[in-house]
Amino acid sequence: MADAATARRRTRGTGGGAARRAERTAVSVESARFIERRIPDFDILDDEALSLIEHGAETILQEIGVNFVNNPAALQLWRDAGADVTGERVRMPRGLARALIATAPSRFTQVARNPERNVEIGGRSLVLAPVYGPPFVHDMNGGRRYATIEDFRNFVRLGYMSKWLHHSGGTVCEPTDIPVNKRHLDMLLAHMTLSDKPFMGSVTEPSRARDSVEMCEILFGREFVAENTVMTSLININSPLTFDDTMMGALEVYAAANQACIVSPFDVGGAMAPVSVAGTLTQVLAEVMAGIAYSQLVRPGAPVIFGAFVTSIDMNSGAPTFGTPEAAQITYGAGQLARRLGLPYRSAGAFTGSKLPDAQAAYETSNSLNMGLLSGVNFMLHACGWLEGGLVSSFEKFVMDADQLGALHKLAQGIEVTEESMALDAVREVGPGGHYLGCAHTQAHFKTAFWRSDLLDYKPFEAWAEDGMRDTLTLANARVRKLLDQYRQPALDPAINDALNDYVARKKAAAPDAFS
Amino acid sequence: MADAATARRRTRGTGGGAARRAERTAVSVESARFIERRIPDFDILDDEALSLIEHGAETILQEIGVNFVNNPAALQLWRDAGADVTGERVRMPRGLARALIATAPSRFTQVARNPERNVEIGGRSLVLAPVYGPPFVHDMNGGRRYATIEDFRNFVRLGYMSKWLHHSGGTVCEPTDIPVNKRHLDMLLAHMTLSDKPFMGSVTEPSRARDSVEMCEILFGREFVAENTVMTSLININSPLTFDDTMMGALEVYAAANQACIVSPFDVGGAMAPVSVAGTLTQVLAEVMAGIAYSQLVRPGAPVIFGAFVTSIDMNSGAPTFGTPEAAQITYGAGQLARRLGLPYRSAGAFTGSKLPDAQAAYETSNSLNMGLLSGVNFMLHACGWLEGGLVSSFEKFVMDADQLGALHKLAQGIEVTEESMALDAVREVGPGGHYLGCAHTQAHFKTAFWRSDLLDYKPFEAWAEDGMRDTLTLANARVRKLLDQYRQPALDPAINDALNDYVARKKAAAPDAFS
Repeated sequence: MADAATARRRTRGTGGGAARRAERTAVSVESARFIERRIPDFDILDDEALSLIEHGAETILQEIGVNFVNNPAALQLWRDAGADVTGERVRMPRGLARALIATAPSRFTQVARNPERNVEIGGRSLVLAPVYGPPFVHDMNGGRRYATIEDFRNFVRLGYMSKWLHHSGGTVCEPTDIPVNKRHLDMLLAHMTLSDKPFMGSVTEPSRARDSVEMCEILFGREFVAENTVMTSLININSPLTFDDTMMGALEVYAAANQACIVSPFDVGGAMAPVSVAGTLTQVLAEVMAGIAYSQLVRPGAPVIFGAFVTSIDMNSGAPTFGTPEAAQITYGAGQLARRLGLPYRSAGAFTGSKLPDAQAAYETSNSLNMGLLSGVNFMLHACGWLEGGLVSSFEKFVMDADQLGALHKLAQGIEVTEESMALDAVREVGPGGHYLGCAHTQAHFKTAFWRSDLLDYKPFEAWAEDGMRDTLTLANARVRKLLDQYRQPALDPAINDALNDYVARKKAAAPDAFS
Repeated sequence: MADAATARRRTRGTGGGAARRAERTAVSVESARFIERRIPDFDILDDEALSLIEHGAETILQEIGVNFVNNPAALQLWRDAGADVTGERVRMPRGLARALIATAPSRFTQVARNPERNVEIGGRSLVLAPVYGPPFVHDMNGGRRYATIEDFRNFVRLGYMSKWLHHSGGTVCEPTDIPVNKRHLDMLLAHMTLSDKPFMGSVTEPSRARDSVEMCEILFGREFVAENTVMTSLININSPLTFDDTMMGALEVYAAANQACIVSPFDVGGAMAPVSVAGTLTQVLAEVMAGIAYSQLVRPGAPVIFGAFVTSIDMNSGAPTFGTPEAAQITYGAGQLARRLGLPYRSAGAFTGSKLPDAQAAYETSNSLNMGLLSGVNFMLHACGWLEGGLVSSFEKFVMDADQLGALHKLAQGIEVTEESMALDAVREVGPGGHYLGCAHTQAHFKTAFWRSDLLDYKPFEAWAEDGMRDTLTLANARVRKLLDQYRQPALDPAINDALNDYVARKKAAAPDAFS
């Protein structure tokens, strides 16, 4: 903000009409620093309950075990570490997983190509990243349709333009018009060239994870990548208790390269996990402990995140449901479990099952975002744009949610209680029956006192009615167009840009297209 | 729920076609018991900050004081209690207000005419009451218009039909077609005859408070009212620091009759309170302490609630804003201050500044409802139906918000961690790679495991599309009509009903109409 203000003052100094026009149309691409909480976490469980769950998770690991599928090397690593391996089933003596996890860092830095956009993941921080994975997109103009690479690029542009988003994310939508075996190249190229925020790597094949590392070596330099974490990638566990070779193969590539992985069960209670909150928490903990312990077998010290994608199910339709009270309970509880393991925590997001960015979407999203902040989440994927249970990336909802993320920043600052902020002099000045609009304290602070939405309508009824009675969806549609119109690509060394494009062209030419 | 099930079984027993039709159309008017939290409160401030604010509030009371306007009897009570009274200004030695507050109960029961609907206010409880005060109503069919008594009655009927609403409220909208000096009679008659939930009394004149007590004496019996709290009424403080004779006159009537009052500053930061969160909290505390101390001067032991209606302002338009992070900070902080005084706490609500029940409305409302639960609110007015900064009662938003209140009930139950709920046997049964849909634990628990919305759409896209692609507003519109169609007036002793109607008729005949 300070930079933009300086730029405006400089422009004003030149005095000409063109300069004034430039000022009016100047685009300030502000990006907030990741959130550093100055408020406590909400601890829903007491120590006794947490200990019971931890004991239950160890029981699962010891008695039931987990499967590492199609992965003899992993089984050997487990055997060497002291686990009991039978077939593909790995059973761990009590305490083994926890002991292995001890080498994982509690906090790490993910570097962006613009160092001002570096993020700290862990501790009291909260890093916000956009929706991940939907095959469809939706907007007011075109409705629901399969996503293309141009949609993908537009979401990356919107993420770059979104002040409260710290991270460019990964598969912001699936570019279904690009062959499955080449999509990751175009996606990474978009994140690397259309934004300067940190991003995620591909996980759909170990070879694609290697491509991701190689493209980062072009962008950042080979030595830099060896010494720094430049990607945080999403490794899903096939719940219940199954680690498949695709995801583990990607994890192995990233852990070996000292790149970060979110190790994340995907647990819909009643389907992939018990139908109870305590049961889901116990299974989540067992799954995360096994996955993170394995990451440390691959490379002790590799940066990892305790992930928990958990929600409830509608037992009438079998559909997963979002923004529910049970999801909130699990998210709060899992945060406590992650902190007791000393690990960064990924959970929550702008979740909804709604088919439209309507009131249902906003209720469910707001429930999820609030619990995400208070549960101590350090990395929030899906923080904006998620629609229809993750099947759809919504353009309007992207900017609607991204606006709400601003409120999280302000809430996380906590309450400053000082002589100045308590403002007793203002109370004295105004006195009983007066008003504060003109008093000295208000004049000194009103510009920064309150968070203000860039999207929502604060006008009185009459002004709003004259303005066309627009609802939030209509306002968001206009904001999407405005942000995409204002978008300018951040500068990148042309040699690096060429090298990245060459790499992608070479890789694409080297293999036939595959669409499954 | 048990009663409805029993009724259904009885009907089934008769076996006839008419009985089966009756069963299919039977309306179960379930009403949830008030929430008893089994989760902790979110404490945003530490002890040092709270002590500073408490010290600041005492400084305000001692140095600046409060005005009791046009109320010589109140000034005399303050003088007798040891306050320094100059003109209408009352200054209290440090500790006086706090000492007087000590006689206020920390928890009380408000009795409803159906004793199953009695509510406990204070401690770990949360009682939910609908929107209060708007002169306008809004629905999809008629748009925005002045409220009438028939609108009022329909909101009372909707409140009666709303499972998660514990309280019928007060001025659910202003019946602008009834003379100002007679409205309270029709409003109370509606609450008393169209619902059996607890309700609020009139506060717009001391005489109307007396009418409210007299009508309660008809409904409950004179002796019963003398010994029980049957109304909880809303006494606003004219912030900053002013107690007018109308509101104090109503408080005096209610406190003398042992009826409950919410003593509630109405503080929009930057207008009626300092532009800072800490300043607003300090002023709120001073105002509530003065008001509640006064209630105890009127009658030691009179039931009261620490109220805080607080929000921020949009400094661009001067409009109050809702669901903002600053409002959340104040609500969390004020809850801690109320608990330290040992008083029940009123705050939060389904707040929004939006002109429509759209996504903005839902984001802002959900922010407010969640903070209301976690901040330890005991009485939440405006818990459903509030629109446009409190200018409008929305029919659709009433049922949308009322549905979300169900999620608060479930979240407040906390997480049960037991051998059964941890479900290790289910994990053993299912094992790695299995699924939980058919396992014994799921079969035993799926019906009650997860909260389910009665309004929101959980269908997959295709089914939803076939069904007309309805958004939340459209679904809510249909639900309003359905609930009003299904509504049946709860039984009331005809003699009491006649006596109430006679009282209203007599009072109306005794005075000319006044419209201002």
